[in-house]
Amino acid sequence: MRVVIIGAVACGTKTACRLKRLRPDAEIVLIDKDEFISYGGCGMPYYLTEDVSHIDELRRTIFYVLRDEKFFQEIKGITTLTKTLAEEIDRKKKVVKVRYLESGKMEEIPYDKLVIATGSVPKIPPIPGVNLDGVFTLSNLHDAIKIKERLVSKKVERPLVIGAGFIGLEVVEAFGESWELPVTLLEYFPQVLPRFIDPFISRIIENHLKTKGVNVVLNARIKEIVGENGKVKGVRTENGFYPADLVLLATGVKPNTELAKKAGLFVSPNTEGIVVNERMQTSDPDIYAGGDCVEIKHLITGKGVVMPMGSLANRQGRVIATNIAGGKATFKGTVGAFILKCFDMAIGGCGLSLEIALSEGFKDATYALNIQHERAHFFSTGYSYYSLVFDKRTTKVLGFQTVGPFTDGTLARVHAISSILPSTPTIEEISSLELPYSPPFNTALDPIHVTSFIAENIIYERFKPIAWDEIIERLKKKDDKMLIIDVRNPNEVKDITQKYPNWINIPYQEARRKIKDLPRDKDLVVVCSVGARAYEAARWLINEGFKNVYVALGGIILPKSWGVEF
Amino acid sequence: MRVVIIGAVACGTKTACRLKRLRPDAEIVLIDKDEFISYGGCGMPYYLTEDVSHIDELRRTIFYVLRDEKFFQEIKGITTLTKTLAEEIDRKKKVVKVRYLESGKMEEIPYDKLVIATGSVPKIPPIPGVNLDGVFTLSNLHDAIKIKERLVSKKVERPLVIGAGFIGLEVVEAFGESWELPVTLLEYFPQVLPRFIDPFISRIIENHLKTKGVNVVLNARIKEIVGENGKVKGVRTENGFYPADLVLLATGVKPNTELAKKAGLFVSPNTEGIVVNERMQTSDPDIYAGGDCVEIKHLITGKGVVMPMGSLANRQGRVIATNIAGGKATFKGTVGAFILKCFDMAIGGCGLSLEIALSEGFKDATYALNIQHERAHFFSTGYSYYSLVFDKRTTKVLGFQTVGPFTDGTLARVHAISSILPSTPTIEEISSLELPYSPPFNTALDPIHVTSFIAENIIYERFKPIAWDEIIERLKKKDDKMLIIDVRNPNEVKDITQKYPNWINIPYQEARRKIKDLPRDKDLVVVCSVGARAYEAARWLINEGFKNVYVALGGIILPKSWGVEF
Repeated sequence: MRVVIIGAVACGTKTACRLKRLRPDAEIVLIDKDEFISYGGCGMPYYLTEDVSHIDELRRTIFYVLRDEKFFQEIKGITTLTKTLAEEIDRKKKVVKVRYLESGKMEEIPYDKLVIATGSVPKIPPIPGVNLDGVFTLSNLHDAIKIKERLVSKKVERPLVIGAGFIGLEVVEAFGESWELPVTLLEYFPQVLPRFIDPFISRIIENHLKTKGVNVVLNARIKEIVGENGKVKGVRTENGFYPADLVLLATGVKPNTELAKKAGLFVSPNTEGIVVNERMQTSDPDIYAGGDCVEIKHLITGKGVVMPMGSLANRQGRVIATNIAGGKATFKGTVGAFILKCFDMAIGGCGLSLEIALSEGFKDATYALNIQHERAHFFSTGYSYYSLVFDKRTTKVLGFQTVGPFTDGTLARVHAISSILPSTPTIEEISSLELPYSPPFNTALDPIHVTSFIAENIIYERFKPIAWDEIIERLKKKDDKMLIIDVRNPNEVKDITQKYPNWINIPYQEARRKIKDLPRDKDLVVVCSVGARAYEAARWLINEGFKNVYVALGGIILPKSWGVEF
Repeated sequence: MRVVIIGAVACGTKTACRLKRLRPDAEIVLIDKDEFISYGGCGMPYYLTEDVSHIDELRRTIFYVLRDEKFFQEIKGITTLTKTLAEEIDRKKKVVKVRYLESGKMEEIPYDKLVIATGSVPKIPPIPGVNLDGVFTLSNLHDAIKIKERLVSKKVERPLVIGAGFIGLEVVEAFGESWELPVTLLEYFPQVLPRFIDPFISRIIENHLKTKGVNVVLNARIKEIVGENGKVKGVRTENGFYPADLVLLATGVKPNTELAKKAGLFVSPNTEGIVVNERMQTSDPDIYAGGDCVEIKHLITGKGVVMPMGSLANRQGRVIATNIAGGKATFKGTVGAFILKCFDMAIGGCGLSLEIALSEGFKDATYALNIQHERAHFFSTGYSYYSLVFDKRTTKVLGFQTVGPFTDGTLARVHAISSILPSTPTIEEISSLELPYSPPFNTALDPIHVTSFIAENIIYERFKPIAWDEIIERLKKKDDKMLIIDVRNPNEVKDITQKYPNWINIPYQEARRKIKDLPRDKDLVVVCSVGARAYEAARWLINEGFKNVYVALGGIILPKSWGVEF
């Protein structure tokens, strides 16, 4: 059996190596247009931060062998053709036409089974100046090397990143933290991590970026990347000019499917990804595809999506290898689990954000927000924020987002939720999860439990949530229909009640006795630090017959974490 | 509705508070024989380590209010009777007979619904000397206070802990690390954490304890705790005498069910726990029970177990409150998830250990072991160890164990596995889990995936595993039927091949070419650092027609982590 694999970064090399282990007799040809193959692409931002001291660290096995052409050829026994471009697939003849880029020579390579793992290409925004010297993407090791060279040779004083997605945020940290450079971040959408994270969480990240000295510019409508003598000088938006001597385009990627299209394979018009079945076969059963170039099923919406994640590419490569070797393996789809480090924060999630859930037709989608220390207070590293997005009617969980201090605590919570999310659990199933407990790691009821309890209380309408955006808006308008009942201790409240006439302090300890006399014609908004005491006081108010009782979702810690000052 | 709750630590107070929030009109009476109620019992070891500076830190809410009788009485509106012993339940009259311990006065308290949350009592070994001055258990705050007083007043020079379970290991750390005392740990079984952790993992912990200066004595058959003038002087076992001026009995707990038995409620003869249904009702539907005193269903064996864990007690309290309030909530059972810190290590797991799985009748139970850095090597904190216990015939997962550096990485993996374990996943379902990935947190294929891949390779018999115990035994016997093929780099192997004639080095890079000439009549045992290269080389050997090819499970890092020197 002769298997040709086009693309040798994540999915392609995983397929090749696993297949060789399963079927040592198989003849495998691995083709890549680049000289760098089988590298840890997700580690590139850490080459910029200098956590990775040499680019080869991203190319080595854990036992320090460089994964180059020779490694695959000699150690793995896989015919490996680097600097070789696959130009065409002739499905009738079952050959791949390749061009050896150094010699220019062409050759036809026959296959019994073919694997397309051509990855993705960066989306370049349609603006002038993208080809100026000093404008980069970070889509392969060459990019990483070039950017690092500029940093090392002190040629960068004012870096600018366009796009506040995963890569954008990781690179902003590299520039800001490791190189101590004043970095500007331009984002088209009104928030960082659009689509993945909802605004009530993303503002926490924005504020963190600002405290780290990053110039965060949202709603940035870029007109032009401005140059002088061919070199980048800055970026002009509808509202201003941002000087820069290095611009990183982190505006996303799209599937690299030219070859597949030309071969007549079915490519999704919606996502531009190659269509594959659960066994990762394309519309031609002898041709498999995996990694960033394919469309996969989103397990919450049921729709096709492109999800360019290294972890998925590796798992897909394994599935392809098993199937080519004669086994039966499937890749069912994705819940879009992600995690990233951004300065001192860990950010993670899975499933749908509230915004996407609503836009995907989940009209009863809402969310519960929990703020707490992720572990016992005597081991605490500070506040973490957890949000479960769910359908209030069916009580099904739709998504989960969390930010917190840079520990593995965030990983732990996303690991748990993303593990069960494909089975579309209800909120009750989340609150019934068995999770281990010990004070150095978490709380007796894990943050996941507490978040699901808040969701349950929303589902059963035990309290009416109110968003801080609305509270702040009504405060600004001096809306005297609203009365804020702040149940924190007097020393926590400080002078806030003097500043706002419709903000009164009734300490939690006294609230049960004192609430009876509150006005019955107002919207009573109960607030505390994180929401627990407010919820309890709200229950007392409801028991006393008060009708319009609201609990601020997240407590006052939430707007404070956005940078709001009262 | 009048609800009486006996026991006010974890389950009891959770029931009371939640019920009051759901039904503010309910009349709730909370009874406890102690003055200390509603405290974080799992935090007691950290009071001994001094992470918790004052005992009241274990009694406070997150917003610094002491959870004492007054707090429950005045703030929560719950009638709270401390220092009050529930002596008898008259189910016909529906009253609880209580004795006020200070006055000696008796009273009958009527109930509509009753909750038994009487917790557990320490198991005291049947040996002489347990009542000597200086012999303690750590079952409540009084114990913690007394032990801490001795430590603070420098009365402890040689502490000794009996029992290497969760509490035992946590307290050993407190004595050894925080107080820098030479501590002895005696354990009846031939390993630490018996039943929960299998020996190939527990030996890693034992070696860690030894490197921290702990005198670990396994297989300890204790004859007597020896005293002089009423004070403890040491512990005598069948094999020796261990001097000690403080002895902690950490020999487990048993359900406190005297009251329930006397009331004629059904108590399991096997586990001694009160029998409850999924709604946490006892054999009397008006009486609920929860926490350490009940028997719950083990979700892997289907059998009743007693699982004294604070996290379960809290969740059960919530279920009881919901049901009493008229809702429908269930507690389905447990997979026994646990986590603990022990010096610089995090230890966690869920489900069954291999030993227990075999003893519970899973005759095809076996395990896969994975050793790897839990995150990208440029963020590494060192090796972690992961073991999946599974049924080789059904491929169902039975349990999971892990030890690693003290990060939340261990929590993350147990969170993921324990979340899905109740649905009795197959190994393939574990290898298909979607888990988020980023280099600061994990590897592209998470350690969970890699462990499940090893399990798959065992299921499909892609390699024959061999345990290090057997290898070491055969090395000792100079068994020349065995030939060890060490595929590490020559600099990793050092002089080991000179020491053992049947241990040869064929570096991985050269192995494909050189293996052909190996003897065909021997048991070839392929080893490397962690097992990955050995597995691949074994596949090459099998492809060359070699029959008796074995891969050392875990690589040479495993016995080294046990303290074995080659």
